[in-house]
Amino acid sequence: MNITLPDGSVRSYERGTTALEIAKSISEGLARNVLSAKFNNRIIEVSEPLNEDGSLTLFTWNDKEGKQVFWHSSAHVLAQALEFFYPKVKLTIGPAIENGFYYDVDLGEETISEKDFKKIEDKILELAREKAEFHKKEISKSDALAYYKERNNEFKVELIENLNDGEITFCEHSNFTDLCRGGHLPNTGFIKAVKLMNIAGAYWRGDEKNKQLTRVYGITFPKQGELEEYLKMLEEAKKRDHRKLGKELDIFTFDDDVGPGLPLWLPNGAAIIELLEDFAKKTEKAAGYVRVKSPHIAKESMYIKSGHLPYYAESMFPPMEMDGDKYYLKAMNCPHHHKIFGATPKSYRDLPLRFAEYGTCYRYEQSGELFGLMRVRSLTMNDAHIYCTEAQFQEEFTKVNDLYLKYFKVFGIEKYVMRFSKHSPEKLGHKYINSPELWIKTEAMVRDVLVKLGVNFVEVEDEAAFYGPKIDIQIYSAIGREFTLATNQVDFAQAERFDLWFTNENNEKERPIIIHRAPLSTHERFIGFLLEHYAGNLPSWLAPNQVAVLPISDKFNPYAQKVVDLLKSSDIRASFDDRSEKIGRKIRDAETKKIPYMVVVGEQEQNEGNIAVRKHGEGDIGKFKTEDFARLIHSQHPDNM
Amino acid sequence: MNITLPDGSVRSYERGTTALEIAKSISEGLARNVLSAKFNNRIIEVSEPLNEDGSLTLFTWNDKEGKQVFWHSSAHVLAQALEFFYPKVKLTIGPAIENGFYYDVDLGEETISEKDFKKIEDKILELAREKAEFHKKEISKSDALAYYKERNNEFKVELIENLNDGEITFCEHSNFTDLCRGGHLPNTGFIKAVKLMNIAGAYWRGDEKNKQLTRVYGITFPKQGELEEYLKMLEEAKKRDHRKLGKELDIFTFDDDVGPGLPLWLPNGAAIIELLEDFAKKTEKAAGYVRVKSPHIAKESMYIKSGHLPYYAESMFPPMEMDGDKYYLKAMNCPHHHKIFGATPKSYRDLPLRFAEYGTCYRYEQSGELFGLMRVRSLTMNDAHIYCTEAQFQEEFTKVNDLYLKYFKVFGIEKYVMRFSKHSPEKLGHKYINSPELWIKTEAMVRDVLVKLGVNFVEVEDEAAFYGPKIDIQIYSAIGREFTLATNQVDFAQAERFDLWFTNENNEKERPIIIHRAPLSTHERFIGFLLEHYAGNLPSWLAPNQVAVLPISDKFNPYAQKVVDLLKSSDIRASFDDRSEKIGRKIRDAETKKIPYMVVVGEQEQNEGNIAVRKHGEGDIGKFKTEDFARLIHSQHPDNM
Repeated sequence: MNITLPDGSVRSYERGTTALEIAKSISEGLARNVLSAKFNNRIIEVSEPLNEDGSLTLFTWNDKEGKQVFWHSSAHVLAQALEFFYPKVKLTIGPAIENGFYYDVDLGEETISEKDFKKIEDKILELAREKAEFHKKEISKSDALAYYKERNNEFKVELIENLNDGEITFCEHSNFTDLCRGGHLPNTGFIKAVKLMNIAGAYWRGDEKNKQLTRVYGITFPKQGELEEYLKMLEEAKKRDHRKLGKELDIFTFDDDVGPGLPLWLPNGAAIIELLEDFAKKTEKAAGYVRVKSPHIAKESMYIKSGHLPYYAESMFPPMEMDGDKYYLKAMNCPHHHKIFGATPKSYRDLPLRFAEYGTCYRYEQSGELFGLMRVRSLTMNDAHIYCTEAQFQEEFTKVNDLYLKYFKVFGIEKYVMRFSKHSPEKLGHKYINSPELWIKTEAMVRDVLVKLGVNFVEVEDEAAFYGPKIDIQIYSAIGREFTLATNQVDFAQAERFDLWFTNENNEKERPIIIHRAPLSTHERFIGFLLEHYAGNLPSWLAPNQVAVLPISDKFNPYAQKVVDLLKSSDIRASFDDRSEKIGRKIRDAETKKIPYMVVVGEQEQNEGNIAVRKHGEGDIGKFKTEDFARLIHSQHPDNM
Repeated sequence: MNITLPDGSVRSYERGTTALEIAKSISEGLARNVLSAKFNNRIIEVSEPLNEDGSLTLFTWNDKEGKQVFWHSSAHVLAQALEFFYPKVKLTIGPAIENGFYYDVDLGEETISEKDFKKIEDKILELAREKAEFHKKEISKSDALAYYKERNNEFKVELIENLNDGEITFCEHSNFTDLCRGGHLPNTGFIKAVKLMNIAGAYWRGDEKNKQLTRVYGITFPKQGELEEYLKMLEEAKKRDHRKLGKELDIFTFDDDVGPGLPLWLPNGAAIIELLEDFAKKTEKAAGYVRVKSPHIAKESMYIKSGHLPYYAESMFPPMEMDGDKYYLKAMNCPHHHKIFGATPKSYRDLPLRFAEYGTCYRYEQSGELFGLMRVRSLTMNDAHIYCTEAQFQEEFTKVNDLYLKYFKVFGIEKYVMRFSKHSPEKLGHKYINSPELWIKTEAMVRDVLVKLGVNFVEVEDEAAFYGPKIDIQIYSAIGREFTLATNQVDFAQAERFDLWFTNENNEKERPIIIHRAPLSTHERFIGFLLEHYAGNLPSWLAPNQVAVLPISDKFNPYAQKVVDLLKSSDIRASFDDRSEKIGRKIRDAETKKIPYMVVVGEQEQNEGNIAVRKHGEGDIGKFKTEDFARLIHSQHPDNM
């Protein structure tokens, strides 16, 4: 049989060869690290014999899919350990999550507490050392039901009753069996480190009318060192929690009368927003963008045209019924921009046309899923739509990616991944717009740009948008936490839906290609990220208050006031601490507020006509003429770097 | 009896003296110009004998009230003329409107057309020359009904049936009688010029199920010259119509799928918005404002707290029902700002605190009342709320007014009126918050500021907001049309409702006074105004495109490109007309687009390394070095003036 690998190469193997054997045939090192595999777009066991032609992707710990399989397998081992300590435990479900896994169990009369974690963790490691292999087997519905009925596990019985005969599989390792769709490690021995994180109550199937179960959260790693790093990162992340910093630094607040997920930006937060917008607008202006401005609502017909209704309705706010029409809060700016494009006739001379807007959109999120600035209901997006010809696409797309790279540099983002999501040929016409040549051509153009730019990217099958390939940009904060920054989309469908066209050189009507992009994400998410990334110590150009001027005693207030005035007239955001407090106290307060610079003035400075400057977290950096100090601060703005 | 005049002086008269006689006692000139009067807050006939103590205001043509009486009286004379030409005409209602008056009449089988205007106008002037005096008389309900039943006028009968006996008056002049509440000129002789404007259909009582009547619109003036000026202004206003200019200059558009009253700003419009915002933000920063940012929605409880619900509900968009709550689009930013003020504890050291936001609000207007940018459903306001102590109020209010005066100067607004709306002592506790001393004190402070600043203002009784006095700012465009720019409000109630306080010097809780202000109005209204005011010829600092660079032939494109690049790098908004068109055509096109400057480059300029500059509408203004020309343009920005 012929096996196609992700790099496009094709190798021949005997029928019955497993993914692990194929890995071995490539390299022993690879085989040692392979955790999971995808065959013809389906996650398989690496020990499963393959019997037909197809494309195979192998996953290691470095792949999201590898981690998921690692953690899902670990949930089995957790359950195995729980069965050891609590023989009457009834297992329900145990999935991998973003970081680790959990298992929901019914402990009956028994309970579990954090005190028990140590012994369970030790047991898990002991079971892991057995290197027990995972085996998946098909089982008939009646046998599966019989198995769990015998064990009085009404939960698994309920799950099985909702499955079709012929589709049910059990997974076994060592003395443990579980109902499971599959996707496991070769054996338990890969698990070298484990940490149970916490216990929570969870209703069966998330319905509070059902029985409450015990949810045990855990995380595992292939190396002890990685666990230690992870725990350190968690501790650091707690200190850098944007909700905590947002409150301490007076950046944003929520209010019951306004509503959950709707941040109100205090002056410090609004200042950061203004600074980001100014920077983005200047950058976009230099890159040839023009700005547009659109209302926050539109009629139902707009979203039917765009295809968002009815499919996206549950992510939108409910409609306002007025004058016999339904009006919706916009969940995205695109349709409005398309309307602006279509408002006046366009010629090829007008393209590329790049419409930018910091537009506020509203999306409905379950109140339980709201989280600080990270998951909100109002989002102000660094949005833009680029309308271009096919010939212009590659250059425009390159420029968009350049912008990302520029921003990564400006904000000190050292690690990122671009997830290039492609279509799946089998799903053309339903999940994806049915233009096979256009998909192949556009995806090739996108790949070409990514390769030429030398950016870090992975290709993912079957995750494109309906109307074209997309690139999800994942970035990592200074402490290594992953954030989804933004999505770039190539769109060859909306122009048709909105009947957008331009007159080409041959005086014919032609549809533009549209690129959607938002490199600075939403203000909410990006500022949340920056707070963690910088631990609240925003770089001077982004700090709402750049300098605190601190006279040593009231006697020097007049001189300090002159310094403040000069700084302000040099366009520096300076504050004046004229309280009758000791200088030590003033410095401590400025440090707490994470103001980048403190200017201390006393007798000596007044006599010499200069200022003594302290840097936040670093201390004294010497004496300056006020004008020179202002220049120093200005030189830290990315526009001047 | 004692008569109190607006300046506070008190004069004694015999009972039975009329307002006209009182005017005569003050000056003959005044008496000649008095058109109407208000006695104890009630519009009276100037010929009506007064029989009790009270306060009297006399109105002339310069007062809104004077004009209203002039035009309402003119409606009587129009009706008189119509009765002359159409003896079977049935009169219904004939009010004064913003500019002139109309009369709705039932002409039965007859019709009226613009051809008939001349003879009717002539008749009106003939009747005016009779100087017939207006006399109001009380009439019993039965007599009034009998009068109109005899004339088969079912409309007047219906009106009378809805009135109470004892409150019904007729007004007579010459051979004409009409059911009327009163408020008329001394006699018809004041009417020296008349113009019938147009005819429209109008349903009786505005209900399309009723009979359709003929509405005749007209306007009259006390001087022929004023009519001529008015007609000239109308013609000019037509050319300057912001809807026409908005389309021609690609400033804004409306779209059926978005909805009526919801402008989409094209790049040129968005550029003007950005320029205005930059200017306002810089000005506000210098004036000590800080910015905040709030969502466009809030829960019902917010607007119940603010008092907007249920009273203001019909001006708001309908609610969105979600998670068991009702969410409303904000119709004003104030409650959000109050929430931000209240989010963190405040001390007297934090005041005055000035929160500014260009916040977009949504207000429901009947679709029939929408008008271009002037009456819209989405409005982005140059909003701010100033929270201050009582001691700070006067200075803060002065600064707000200074800002208006600064803006008037910047935008060449030469004529304005501030309408200072005060409370009415009788209505304390229902129409107005019941704090009599606070009203008197605050109104005195406001008056004091207005007097000290020497601004043009009028005082109006009984038009304040519920929670404090307000000032409506009326401005006049270059062609003399009046626009309502904005409203300043002094608010001593919302702090209570939102439980806002600060800790004063004595460590006690105290409520701040709040000033609401929006000197640049909304983007929609202000840009609409500017388009008319400047006839679309925006000053260079506000023009989306400041300079069009026009090479004389393709040969000079490379040199022209250099000029464009240099201008752009000097932060000038320059466009490049590189079409292969004749220079004459290029200039004409740039003139049509109302671009402030055109730069023409050819052989000579290339050789000399300079540029030839033309000013829009003026022609050649000489040769410049590109850098000097860029400096010239920058010098026209108000920040640099």
